[in-house]
Amino acid sequence: MSDYLSQHDVQKMLDASPYLAFMGILVDTIDPGNDTLVLRLPMRPEFERRPDSGQYHGGVIASLIDTAGDYALAMRIGNVVPTVNFRTDFLRPASHTELKATARVRRIGKTIAVVDIDVHDADHRLIAIGRGTYIPQAG
Amino acid sequence: MSDYLSQHDVQKMLDASPYLAFMGILVDTIDPGNDTLVLRLPMRPEFERRPDSGQYHGGVIASLIDTAGDYALAMRIGNVVPTVNFRTDFLRPASHTELKATARVRRIGKTIAVVDIDVHDADHRLIAIGRGTYIPQAG
Amino acid sequence: MSDYLSQHDVQKMLDASPYLAFMGILVDTIDPGNDTLVLRLPMRPEFERRPDSGQYHGGVIASLIDTAGDYALAMRIGNVVPTVNFRTDFLRPASHTELKATARVRRIGKTIAVVDIDVHDADHRLIAIGRGTYIPQAG
Amino acid sequence: MSDYLSQHDVQKMLDASPYLAFMGILVDTIDPGNDTLVLRLPMRPEFERRPDSGQYHGGVIASLIDTAGDYALAMRIGNVVPTVNFRTDFLRPASHTELKATARVRRIGKTIAVVDIDVHDADHRLIAIGRGTYIPQAG
Repeated sequence: MSDYLSQHDVQKMLDASPYLAFMGILVDTIDPGNDTLVLRLPMRPEFERRPDSGQYHGGVIASLIDTAGDYALAMRIGNVVPTVNFRTDFLRPASHTELKATARVRRIGKTIAVVDIDVHDADHRLIAIGRGTYIPQAG
Repeated sequence: MSDYLSQHDVQKMLDASPYLAFMGILVDTIDPGNDTLVLRLPMRPEFERRPDSGQYHGGVIASLIDTAGDYALAMRIGNVVPTVNFRTDFLRPASHTELKATARVRRIGKTIAVVDIDVHDADHRLIAIGRGTYIPQAG
Repeated sequence: MSDYLSQHDVQKMLDASPYLAFMGILVDTIDPGNDTLVLRLPMRPEFERRPDSGQYHGGVIASLIDTAGDYALAMRIGNVVPTVNFRTDFLRPASHTELKATARVRRIGKTIAVVDIDVHDADHRLIAIGRGTYIPQAG
Repeated sequence: MSDYLSQHDVQKMLDASPYLAFMGILVDTIDPGNDTLVLRLPMRPEFERRPDSGQYHGGVIASLIDTAGDYALAMRIGNVVPTVNFRTDFLRPASHTELKATARVRRIGKTIAVVDIDVHDADHRLIAIGRGTYIPQAG
């Protein structure tokens, strides 16, 4: 397991991206043994769908999903990789102060990798799910 | 066609959302006769995938796709509607100074509406495509 | 739980569909407590992608995925429901004598239900995954 | 354009697959200049969702979509290629005696190709749409 990136390394990679640094995405947990990564996204005013709704816009949730899938692979491969496509299903409005995205690698093949991402709110309610395919090439 | 929202109305709705106002999404064209809406997204530093790459982060593109699909329906229904799910396929890196998303309504049924979205860069290259399903209820 | 359909009832519903009867889909397990249904699909010559390959065609796998998602909801609602859309990701060639599809309901909302489906071959290898959205209305 | 497969060649490839020969898929039109292929699927009793409904089962439509996407690429590349994933959206019940699937290649990249597929019934109504990603390698 010594080849996996550390939590510190993954956070540094996130912070190096202007978009992800703006979003303020934080690494919550890395669990290479289970091919799982958890990211946290605290609310900020720019994320609101409607003024004073307290609800995250769907595009913010989709950004979190794509990022969680990508970094679950980065944790293992050592660099971020191109997204081929991803799907976002919205299950409930997300009106809490923090979201958690749990990304689990389902398969890393020679050409394609597939990752599933569950997004929960601060009350542990499942608010969205994502599924992404990536090209798992070394950087 | 008199029931369709005007370009001014759609822009006002976009600006009323904190997230979309932050993104700076602009209405380029509305064409109710063809059920088509075009949005523009000028680059801003927070959108960059990597510093000085000039490339839009995939989450920004996904946000634009979801929004274009939603507002193509809003143009017709009069209000934004909930997204059920959407898919984003990335075709080329998007490194230009502006993106255009062309959303075309494929079907508005009783329960579900489906919209296709093509995203081009300033050189008219197709850089991503999206497909979203929405619940087309009046607000 | 007394309102859930029995394994016998689900099998009878499958057999009543000309297409699913042709396919020969069998109920393996129903587990209403975990909102999970497992279907089995034995190989038959018409399913082969190429002659003598022993590989299931992708369309067969997609049909199994859509059906497993639908019947996981039918088990609970009492009737099959319309599919809005579904996604199929192929992870490995499926060349074994039987497939198993495990469908797990992720969410039943007022308008939309979402189901995840994992497909394994007879060697317990994950060969495809599906995600479907349905309209969970009573028949 | 001399490198593209002829309609006869594409039909021969379809017929060589036990699954597609069972389905009875026919090449309607090939239009390499527009990167477009049209397949036809006449009804047969095994395709029915419910007895005497005259409606195609969704799995049949999904199989047609995946196949049309694949052969739109085969027409150009010379061989069928692996599907990475595909999405099927159902827009209307399909109760007619024949379906037509029009597949249009959106992009062939180095690693990934993307194809859009529209399915119409004999009354020219749009009944389903698909989007697939494939690995466009030579066979």
